Amino acid sequence: MSQVRNVKILGTGKYLPMKKVYSHEIDELLGVTNGWVEQKSGVVVRSFVEQETASEMAAYAANDAIKASGLQKTDIDCIVSVSGTMEQPIPCNAALIQQQLGLNDSKIPCFDINSTCLSFVTGFDTISYLVHCGRYKNVLLVSSEVASVGLDWDKKENVILFGDGAAAVVLTKTPENEPSKVLCGHMETFSDGAHFTEIRGGGTKLHPNNPNGKKDDFLFDMNGKSVFKLSSRNIAAFLEKLLAASDCTMNDIDLVVPHQASGMAMRILRNKLGIEERKFMNIIHNHGNTIAASIPMALHEAIMQNKIQRGNKIMLIGTSAGLSIGGVVFEY
Amino acid sequence: MSQVRNVKILGTGKYLPMKKVYSHEIDELLGVTNGWVEQKSGVVVRSFVEQETASEMAAYAANDAIKASGLQKTDIDCIVSVSGTMEQPIPCNAALIQQQLGLNDSKIPCFDINSTCLSFVTGFDTISYLVHCGRYKNVLLVSSEVASVGLDWDKKENVILFGDGAAAVVLTKTPENEPSKVLCGHMETFSDGAHFTEIRGGGTKLHPNNPNGKKDDFLFDMNGKSVFKLSSRNIAAFLEKLLAASDCTMNDIDLVVPHQASGMAMRILRNKLGIEERKFMNIIHNHGNTIAASIPMALHEAIMQNKIQRGNKIMLIGTSAGLSIGGVVFEY
Repeated sequence: MSQVRNVKILGTGKYLPMKKVYSHEIDELLGVTNGWVEQKSGVVVRSFVEQETASEMAAYAANDAIKASGLQKTDIDCIVSVSGTMEQPIPCNAALIQQQLGLNDSKIPCFDINSTCLSFVTGFDTISYLVHCGRYKNVLLVSSEVASVGLDWDKKENVILFGDGAAAVVLTKTPENEPSKVLCGHMETFSDGAHFTEIRGGGTKLHPNNPNGKKDDFLFDMNGKSVFKLSSRNIAAFLEKLLAASDCTMNDIDLVVPHQASGMAMRILRNKLGIEERKFMNIIHNHGNTIAASIPMALHEAIMQNKIQRGNKIMLIGTSAGLSIGGVVFEY
Repeated sequence: MSQVRNVKILGTGKYLPMKKVYSHEIDELLGVTNGWVEQKSGVVVRSFVEQETASEMAAYAANDAIKASGLQKTDIDCIVSVSGTMEQPIPCNAALIQQQLGLNDSKIPCFDINSTCLSFVTGFDTISYLVHCGRYKNVLLVSSEVASVGLDWDKKENVILFGDGAAAVVLTKTPENEPSKVLCGHMETFSDGAHFTEIRGGGTKLHPNNPNGKKDDFLFDMNGKSVFKLSSRNIAAFLEKLLAASDCTMNDIDLVVPHQASGMAMRILRNKLGIEERKFMNIIHNHGNTIAASIPMALHEAIMQNKIQRGNKIMLIGTSAGLSIGGVVFEY
C-alpha cells in the first residue's frame, strides 16, 4: 500500500548556543595528543549551552522556521517536541516551548514524540499523516537538545561527539500542483541493543534521589562497538525496505541527510549507501552530534546552502538508542 | 472537515503491582485524622511497585491486551509507549517494552508519545491516523507508570492521589461492516500553567548531578488550586469544541471515561458534563491516579464490567500537566 502523504516542509530554522568548544580544547581537557579528538570524532567545533535552556533554544529555532515559512506564530496549530532529552520530567517539552514562544494564550496543542536520536524522523513520519488527513494545518516540529550536561568525561570516546542546539521545521499540506510529498517512512527497533546506548538513572527505575545512584548512572553511556555491530548487521536489509517503500532506487535520491552520529559512523553509512560525498549532507565538523536535532539541523543547512531544490528526493536516515534504525524519503 | 478514522480497539489489558497501600495506612504515615486521606482523595486503596519496573508492568498489561485481541505477539507491528514517566532517560520506554515482551528479534518499531496524564489520549488520537491510513496493522499502545517513586511526602494533598500500574490497548483497522471508529480528537494546551504541575529536576535544566538540586526538585509538585482555576475556566469551551467535532451531543455519549485525577476533580468534571453517575466511569477508589495509565485502565475496566458494548459512543477526557485538556470521542 502506498504511503504517500501530501505534506510539504514550509520552512526550517536552527539555533546554536553562543559558547563554542573546539576539539583542541577537549584534547587538553582529556590529556590526549593534540588532534586526537578531531580525528576520532570528525568534530572541529561544537556548541555548549551556558545559560540557555532547551525550550529557549527551541523557541529561537522555531521563530526562525516560522519566519522562513512566511507564517505568523499563531498560524501554527500543533507543536510537537521531537527531542531525545527532556528539559524537565514534567510537563512535556512542547508545553514549555509554547510558553517560550509567548503562545500561552493560543491553546495550541502540545505533546512530545521521542525515539532518542530519531525523534525528528519519527515525528515527521507520524505527524505527516495528520497533516495529510487535514487534522492540523501547520505543525511545528522542534528538536532541542542539551547533550553537554549529561556527558561522562571519564568516557573519552563518547564525550567528544556531542554538541548542543536546536532545529525546527514547519509542515503543511502541499498546495495543489506542487510536487512536495512524503514518499515513505520505515523504522526497525532491535531491543537486543536496548542497553547498548543509555542513561540508566534519572527515570523511575533509578530515581535521582535513590541513595544507590552513582554519579555516572545519570550520564550518557554507549558501547560503541556493540552499537556498530548490531546496526551494521541490519542496515542493508533496512535500506532495501526503505527504498522499496519509497519506490526509489538509491540513484533517484538527490541528497541523503543522515544522523550526524560521528565522523566514522557517517563514513561507514555513506559506504553502505554507495553514494558520492556531494550527495551526503555532513555538518558534523562544526556542530557535533546534536542528538535528535542533528537531522533537522543538517536539513536546514542543506536548504540554506541551496543543496536542495523543490522536487528533489531527500532521504533522512539514522540510528538511535533502542537500538533503532529509521528513515524517511520525501520530495522536498 | 470530518476527522473520522476507521479504527477499532481490538483488546485491552491491565496490570497492578502486588503491594496494596490503603488510605488508612497513609493516614497514619501522614499523622492525619483517620479517614482524611480517603475523604480528600476518593482513593481507598492504590498499588505501589516493590521490584516491578515500568517496562515489566507494561509487558504484563500488553500480553493481556494482545491475548484479549486474539492476536499473537508477533502480529503487533508498532509499539508506542504512551506514558507520563520514563523508566530511564535513554532509550525510550517502548524499546524497553519490546525487550520485556521478548520481541527483541521482531524489528517492531518502538517510540514514545508523551503529554503527561493525557499521553494515552494523545497517542490514541495520533496513531489512529496511521492505522486508518494503513501504515500499521496492529498497534500496541501501553501506558505504564511508577508514580510512587516521585512522590513528595511533605506535600500531603498530592501524595494521597497516586497509584502505580499499567494498561495496554491494541488498535487495528475496523473490518468492513463493523461500526467501530474514532469520531474526533481535540486537545488544548495552556502553558500559563506549564509550571503548575511539574517535576522541576531530573532533565537537562536541573540535572540529577547538579549540586544545586534539592531533594524536592526531583519530586512531583502541583499547585492544585491554580490547576483547578485554569482548567475550570476553559473546560466548557473545550467540551463544546470536542462535541462539535464529534457531531454528537452529550446525550449521545454512552460512557465517559475520564482521567482519574482525584475524587473531587472527577465530581466537578461530571457536573460540568452534566451526566448521570452510571455514565461516568470511576475507578479511582481502588486504583488512585495512575497518570497516563488511568484512562486506558478505566476503559479496560469498563469493557471487563460490560459497561461498554460495540457501537457505543465513548468519550475519553482529561487534563494533564502542560496544562492541557484533551479528549477523544469514538464508537467502540
